[in-house]
Amino acid sequence: MSAWLLPDHIADVLPSEARRIEELRRELLDTARAYGYELVIPPLIEHLDSLLTGTGEALNLQTFKLVDQLSGRSLGVRADTTPQVARIDAHLLGRQAVTRLCYCGPVLHTRPERPHATREPLQFGAEIYGHAGREADLEVLSLALDCLSAAQVGDLTVDLADARIVRALLAGVMVDPQVLSAVHDALAAKDASEIARLTDDFPAASREGLLKLVTLYGGAEVLDEAEIALQRFPAVRDVLSNLKWLASRLEGVNVSFDLSDARGYDYYTGVRFAVYARSAGDALLRGGRYDGVGAVFGHKLDRERPAVGFSLDVKQLVRAASERPLRAAICAPWSDAPELMAAVRALRQQGETVVCVLPGQGEIDEFDCDRELVLSAGQWQVQPIGKD
Amino acid sequence: MSAWLLPDHIADVLPSEARRIEELRRELLDTARAYGYELVIPPLIEHLDSLLTGTGEALNLQTFKLVDQLSGRSLGVRADTTPQVARIDAHLLGRQAVTRLCYCGPVLHTRPERPHATREPLQFGAEIYGHAGREADLEVLSLALDCLSAAQVGDLTVDLADARIVRALLAGVMVDPQVLSAVHDALAAKDASEIARLTDDFPAASREGLLKLVTLYGGAEVLDEAEIALQRFPAVRDVLSNLKWLASRLEGVNVSFDLSDARGYDYYTGVRFAVYARSAGDALLRGGRYDGVGAVFGHKLDRERPAVGFSLDVKQLVRAASERPLRAAICAPWSDAPELMAAVRALRQQGETVVCVLPGQGEIDEFDCDRELVLSAGQWQVQPIGKD
Repeated sequence: MSAWLLPDHIADVLPSEARRIEELRRELLDTARAYGYELVIPPLIEHLDSLLTGTGEALNLQTFKLVDQLSGRSLGVRADTTPQVARIDAHLLGRQAVTRLCYCGPVLHTRPERPHATREPLQFGAEIYGHAGREADLEVLSLALDCLSAAQVGDLTVDLADARIVRALLAGVMVDPQVLSAVHDALAAKDASEIARLTDDFPAASREGLLKLVTLYGGAEVLDEAEIALQRFPAVRDVLSNLKWLASRLEGVNVSFDLSDARGYDYYTGVRFAVYARSAGDALLRGGRYDGVGAVFGHKLDRERPAVGFSLDVKQLVRAASERPLRAAICAPWSDAPELMAAVRALRQQGETVVCVLPGQGEIDEFDCDRELVLSAGQWQVQPIGKD
Repeated sequence: MSAWLLPDHIADVLPSEARRIEELRRELLDTARAYGYELVIPPLIEHLDSLLTGTGEALNLQTFKLVDQLSGRSLGVRADTTPQVARIDAHLLGRQAVTRLCYCGPVLHTRPERPHATREPLQFGAEIYGHAGREADLEVLSLALDCLSAAQVGDLTVDLADARIVRALLAGVMVDPQVLSAVHDALAAKDASEIARLTDDFPAASREGLLKLVTLYGGAEVLDEAEIALQRFPAVRDVLSNLKWLASRLEGVNVSFDLSDARGYDYYTGVRFAVYARSAGDALLRGGRYDGVGAVFGHKLDRERPAVGFSLDVKQLVRAASERPLRAAICAPWSDAPELMAAVRALRQQGETVVCVLPGQGEIDEFDCDRELVLSAGQWQVQPIGKD
């Protein structure tokens, strides 16, 4: 009985959805290509130490482990493609110049990331290495939004944050790593009383800044408010002006800010963004700047490259995307007569789907055939089905 | 030092090859679609019993095993997609009519299949379920050849065999499974003296037939020779006439026959084919008929469906395929001036690759840019690079 039951959060993708995923996949890759992002295909499995170096405990827990029969070493099935792409930039390409890379392939998670999430997302992403400026941030964010508009997802909100704000508020403060982690959690939960408790012995300016931060989310007015409230932190001023610059260049989307959002603080080093659509609860796309991500892979000391990028799950995106009509097929009788075979071949070369009804096959029920190939006045011709 | 070393027979696919693989992948899927084969995307992992039911020991050894943290059960990473597609046909779609399915995705092998093979082939395949006739065999073989011609692989040889020939010669012979297996190995190796030794106590007709079989490989004359030599086996006559029918309908390829080729004898139930190109040592594509493959997944007794199909490794195929010129890109300066941004956007929508040189980026060395966007007489225009 159980031979066809799949593991929880693992599913087959059946024809109607698979076709939409394939179409979307092509549009995403073509959009990235139009921006000059080169496709790479890192392997599904790698040595565990390579896959997890510098990535933190969360990714370790999400990674399926295997044993390599050839070497006896531990392998992991990738749970995220970004560390692999950083390795490719750092070691394999080794370019000094700006490098733009993109990828699209499955990743596996030991546990679903959300209650209804798949454990096998189809991860698409794009990254730019070797440029530390806000122009690269803008390019990646523009590409991300173009990808979503290729998917015809409407009513988008870009949520902007920056990992450097919390970092600036804590600069010079001696703090236990566990307390630091708790502060980040409290910031993410916007839990002012918990922050007050945790920062009791912090310098007053840091403490007040952190407490203020949990109120700083919403529209563009948040940046003005932050500029006044956090004016004691000069590093914050530059970050706010960068966010303003970025936001002013995004067209056709809502922009919101959440200055206390410090998720991934041990990973991101600058701007962070998430894009939400009204049609989906969770973010459709996440990204940001993570300078130095490939440093562990470099064989030279100068491989600590700036990097900014984003990723999304094509399977999740296709559910938020507008349904597009699927093109109907042409149905043809089976025969090995050369004239019929030539007619079928010509239609297929024009991009039509021609389904041959094999002897004894009966009805075609898997394709919506709206036309048929019929012999009329000695010629094989396409006619609407049902027309006499 | 080892953080960037990949496991043996596992490799990154870098931009120039990745782009060709992506192009070929699309051409293969479009070719299958034009024949009416619907795309399915089975998962990378499944319960081990589901993945391996009815598939034999070889696939078991090739399959990486994992433990599902959610259920504690054993999972496998697919080493072959065909059993999954059979499961989808049998259980999920459950159609009585003919069903055509195709797929394209990575599989993992614990060990390489050949000395230089990857352990992560990108498997593409197409299968037709629910039709036992030779017309379905022909359709699948024609689609296979169209796929190879989409890849522009020339000088092809189709090697035809049929699992029913050896089966007919052994019909009614009581034989130990180990001896049977050794007989198949000896047939594959065309080792007449070993066959003579193993079949010492076989009925004379079977023994002589098997000994004759190892000489029956080559061009169309083989079929005529077999018809005479094996006339005592009426079942063989039908098989030979089918092979002749199939071969006569294949255009533009060399056809050879190998009647003793019994590889996969516990799997294939009818015609078997392999396609070779002069440019590659090993077969580029293998397929055949394996009726009843999905039986274990059916919840009704009548799900023992006839099936015929093929598969290939896109990574292997791309190396045998003709190189095609890659389209060069347009290089543009960076600016947030609306006129330039509009010009860049328009070119990208036309399918061009436009790489923006970010402030301080320097040379573009990853793309071959043969044109640049320049401001000329107040208008942004594309010009050949180097032209004044």
